[in-house]
Amino acid sequence: MNYQAILDEIYDEVQPELHKGKVADYIPALAEVGKGQFAMTVTLDNGQVFSVGDSGKQFSIQSISKVFTFTLALDVYSRELYKRVGVEPSGNPFNSLVQLEYENGIPRNPFINAGAIAITDALISYYRDEYMTLEVIMNFVREISNNPKLSFDPLVANSEMEHGDRNLALARLMKSFGNFENDVLGTVFTYFKHCSITMNTEELSRAMLFLAFGGTDPVSQKQFITPSQTKRINAVMLTCGHYDASGEFAYHVGLPAKSGVGGGIAAIVPGKMSIAVWSPALNRYGNSHAGTLALEKFTTKTGLSIF
Amino acid sequence: MNYQAILDEIYDEVQPELHKGKVADYIPALAEVGKGQFAMTVTLDNGQVFSVGDSGKQFSIQSISKVFTFTLALDVYSRELYKRVGVEPSGNPFNSLVQLEYENGIPRNPFINAGAIAITDALISYYRDEYMTLEVIMNFVREISNNPKLSFDPLVANSEMEHGDRNLALARLMKSFGNFENDVLGTVFTYFKHCSITMNTEELSRAMLFLAFGGTDPVSQKQFITPSQTKRINAVMLTCGHYDASGEFAYHVGLPAKSGVGGGIAAIVPGKMSIAVWSPALNRYGNSHAGTLALEKFTTKTGLSIF
Amino acid sequence: MNYQAILDEIYDEVQPELHKGKVADYIPALAEVGKGQFAMTVTLDNGQVFSVGDSGKQFSIQSISKVFTFTLALDVYSRELYKRVGVEPSGNPFNSLVQLEYENGIPRNPFINAGAIAITDALISYYRDEYMTLEVIMNFVREISNNPKLSFDPLVANSEMEHGDRNLALARLMKSFGNFENDVLGTVFTYFKHCSITMNTEELSRAMLFLAFGGTDPVSQKQFITPSQTKRINAVMLTCGHYDASGEFAYHVGLPAKSGVGGGIAAIVPGKMSIAVWSPALNRYGNSHAGTLALEKFTTKTGLSIF
Amino acid sequence: MNYQAILDEIYDEVQPELHKGKVADYIPALAEVGKGQFAMTVTLDNGQVFSVGDSGKQFSIQSISKVFTFTLALDVYSRELYKRVGVEPSGNPFNSLVQLEYENGIPRNPFINAGAIAITDALISYYRDEYMTLEVIMNFVREISNNPKLSFDPLVANSEMEHGDRNLALARLMKSFGNFENDVLGTVFTYFKHCSITMNTEELSRAMLFLAFGGTDPVSQKQFITPSQTKRINAVMLTCGHYDASGEFAYHVGLPAKSGVGGGIAAIVPGKMSIAVWSPALNRYGNSHAGTLALEKFTTKTGLSIF
Repeated sequence: MNYQAILDEIYDEVQPELHKGKVADYIPALAEVGKGQFAMTVTLDNGQVFSVGDSGKQFSIQSISKVFTFTLALDVYSRELYKRVGVEPSGNPFNSLVQLEYENGIPRNPFINAGAIAITDALISYYRDEYMTLEVIMNFVREISNNPKLSFDPLVANSEMEHGDRNLALARLMKSFGNFENDVLGTVFTYFKHCSITMNTEELSRAMLFLAFGGTDPVSQKQFITPSQTKRINAVMLTCGHYDASGEFAYHVGLPAKSGVGGGIAAIVPGKMSIAVWSPALNRYGNSHAGTLALEKFTTKTGLSIF
Repeated sequence: MNYQAILDEIYDEVQPELHKGKVADYIPALAEVGKGQFAMTVTLDNGQVFSVGDSGKQFSIQSISKVFTFTLALDVYSRELYKRVGVEPSGNPFNSLVQLEYENGIPRNPFINAGAIAITDALISYYRDEYMTLEVIMNFVREISNNPKLSFDPLVANSEMEHGDRNLALARLMKSFGNFENDVLGTVFTYFKHCSITMNTEELSRAMLFLAFGGTDPVSQKQFITPSQTKRINAVMLTCGHYDASGEFAYHVGLPAKSGVGGGIAAIVPGKMSIAVWSPALNRYGNSHAGTLALEKFTTKTGLSIF
Repeated sequence: MNYQAILDEIYDEVQPELHKGKVADYIPALAEVGKGQFAMTVTLDNGQVFSVGDSGKQFSIQSISKVFTFTLALDVYSRELYKRVGVEPSGNPFNSLVQLEYENGIPRNPFINAGAIAITDALISYYRDEYMTLEVIMNFVREISNNPKLSFDPLVANSEMEHGDRNLALARLMKSFGNFENDVLGTVFTYFKHCSITMNTEELSRAMLFLAFGGTDPVSQKQFITPSQTKRINAVMLTCGHYDASGEFAYHVGLPAKSGVGGGIAAIVPGKMSIAVWSPALNRYGNSHAGTLALEKFTTKTGLSIF
Repeated sequence: MNYQAILDEIYDEVQPELHKGKVADYIPALAEVGKGQFAMTVTLDNGQVFSVGDSGKQFSIQSISKVFTFTLALDVYSRELYKRVGVEPSGNPFNSLVQLEYENGIPRNPFINAGAIAITDALISYYRDEYMTLEVIMNFVREISNNPKLSFDPLVANSEMEHGDRNLALARLMKSFGNFENDVLGTVFTYFKHCSITMNTEELSRAMLFLAFGGTDPVSQKQFITPSQTKRINAVMLTCGHYDASGEFAYHVGLPAKSGVGGGIAAIVPGKMSIAVWSPALNRYGNSHAGTLALEKFTTKTGLSIF
């Protein structure tokens, strides 16, 4: 299939959509990113890469980082992890405290904020301190993306911390239920740091490749996790990857994927490829408007879908 | 792959599990079904069938019928259907009124009770009356299952109606929000009738086959819906098919499937096969305990999964 | 104190407020009542009556009737009544199903719709049938208001029934939890009938007099309930009498009172007097805007308050 | 009326009840208080005092302190206070985050935890710093209780802070909605300090006396607040003073009152007297079991009630 031609078509078709929606503005650092930008990259098992748009432009991956911390935590804790976080769609906004209160401080899944913070906390418990944990996360992301220089943006992380009261409330609430082990401020700051990792679509696409191939990067042949763990991460991406629009996304796109409020979406086609798309204006659910549309067009044009 | 051998293995392995869980007891007609029963059938594209256990034994398909009414309604209404029912996981029990009240009478998806009742109501509006609608549903299920004699159990339907206050409350609540068009009692009774359809695993497996093959039964070559509609139905089964254990099911089994409180589960492997399993004792989420386990074993042993 | 002068003052002061707010429009029969009307009546222990405005004009007492059915049910069932309905403020809108679902079909108090319907149901169980129950209610209201010709408006009752889906949903939900004993349609219709009683402020004020004097009408010397029962009814009026603005009302007015969406409010000053006020335009909580204001002015000017 | 004889009777009657219920055990400092203790004091307008039981024994007043901070804040902010906290019963447990999230960070009333923390925060904004605010609160409580040596227990305050995650979550959540002005940790610690004030029933009864007499202590003739403010505080005590058992309390006791998890309850009879009762074992709503019963007996025996 001529993926480059398909990406070029999509690029043309999404142009009128790039200014629809709203850039995330809850922190100044994200609000400055201009609308109208778009990038999309497909990576195949042989390492071949197809891109359109600003595929070299760095953006804040935000919640997409939750896939990587969930991967690390699943590897380290295995089934024990489910004492601290579930795998069910929440049916509620990503930052809601309601369900967390009703369900005794156990977050529904690793992709809502509370769940991702619980996972950062679990990693800190395992790796002993915040610094070491951040190092482990950064090194893992550098390795899977094949870019040893990848970093996070401290301005974004600081800005998130300054406006982090809601997430601090989630952490405190978990602590009140006994589902929190480390320092609240330090853990949430570590969480904000890994959310502030910046990547371009080429790096992000590559970073997802191991999830399309049973846990092993098909280019480097490095195995990160088992096929069984991989399937499970993909299942959670499908059911919970897009906040309370996960059902819509599965319905329209039909691929396991995870979005972030920075405008990025990372998806995989099991056994075939990984895809990253970026466009900063968000729909009302907090997912990239043009990015979602581009992925829907991609699965329609290629006939690729897990269903 | 030797599917018969795999089914035989599973049959042996689930024996100690058949008495765990609880048979649905909210109506007498279902409560009488004995624990300890188990059946499983796999149907391939060439019509080849593999079965173990009581695969000729009829059971009440209950909520599995919602897949068939959703299929009919999607075919008839297309996108218009989404004015009346969404495609998001609910995050709440199947019969909850809470979300329905907060969300102005629009059910989250076609597989929670409110959503399925709204779909029955939509079908009655289209086919003019309850009798005609029931005929259309029955004829469709007879055709896809390749059994022209299939019927529903009027004793079960009547028993459900007698204990139907919760579902009548859901219908009334939708009516109060303007999301209900026909007679409340008659519509809910029609809903209970199609839930009371009885099938065995061989019939149910065959009835699902078109969903594994883009909407066309590969044996009869009859096309029921388009490939695009098929993908969407499968997506909703994956995200919403098992009440508020849908995430767990996707995580452990990794196939689009729909369960019913009669103990049945119907699943598909896109492009490969359909599967039906039945064992009446339910886990705490209302899904067949041994049936879920058998499907998890099946995907583990065969490596089949959409992820 | 010169009550007539005080009422005259209030009458002048509320004139600019009579067109603020919105007349109840959920049923046509109520929507037709014109804004701009106002009446207020005070009745003392010796039967002396002070009125201003349209005090001879009949209006639909709506939820104020719940005070009278609660009185009858408390007399008949005593403590047994609390198996079916509580006495706590709900913190939710008057017609919400949410709390009813979470709390297993037991309404929070007799003044939210679910609670009042449960009480009508309990009265029907006691008096055997709907007809007899309605007779008992009507005769009681005729006696306490000292007007043997008092009736309900069948047009309003029918109109409420036509738009009664929400209340029917509440009844069905209670039935699904086993907290409902009689026919759903017939019981809700009886409830709508007693809500459709029409009175003027002179009749309503007199009807409340026994609650200001320990259960005995000080004019006729007829005892209807005990002093202890009276205190309890007054307590429930204070904490739950104004939907989810009950706290505001207690805060600003400081008297036990009950409002209805017909624009009436009935209040008592224990040991001193009863008061009825009517003005059809409602504030956003469904309580008479000018009526609430008039009562606040009355307690400010007279210094009367229970606090 | 012979109040001493009535208190003696009550003392005898509550003996079998003193061991029912459970002492608050969420912090060690409170858990150590032994069951079986009881004290009750009535203070009249002339300063005459009637007591039974351990009326000289100090206990932690906990949430009763919220009456005093509400009084101070109402005096300082007047109507402006209602931008930050409402006066409606919540219908939810005292420490729930659910309603706070749904209602955009505005607590329902000054007596649930969130509301009392918001009021402490408002006082700190007014008095500039935490230290000065605590001084103002302590001096006010010393003055109204006529005991210049009154203090709080730092061990209790520290212990609350150590287990204070739920309250810190409430503060953070308010901050995320913009309804919080000062340092979260410092403000919540100040809140815990005023909750840790220790008093005996004689001091507490005297401290409430001004609320029974329009805001002026009838013994010292000192006016603290206006009659109008007093009525409003009493109204909020009646509708919200006992967590989600406020309706029950109004129903059974019929007096404005506020309880604390230390086992104290402070009540007033407008124009007549103030009452303090203490018994540490709590009912399931967190109110003193024997204390509630003693007050119910008191109003039954004396016929005193606001209704």
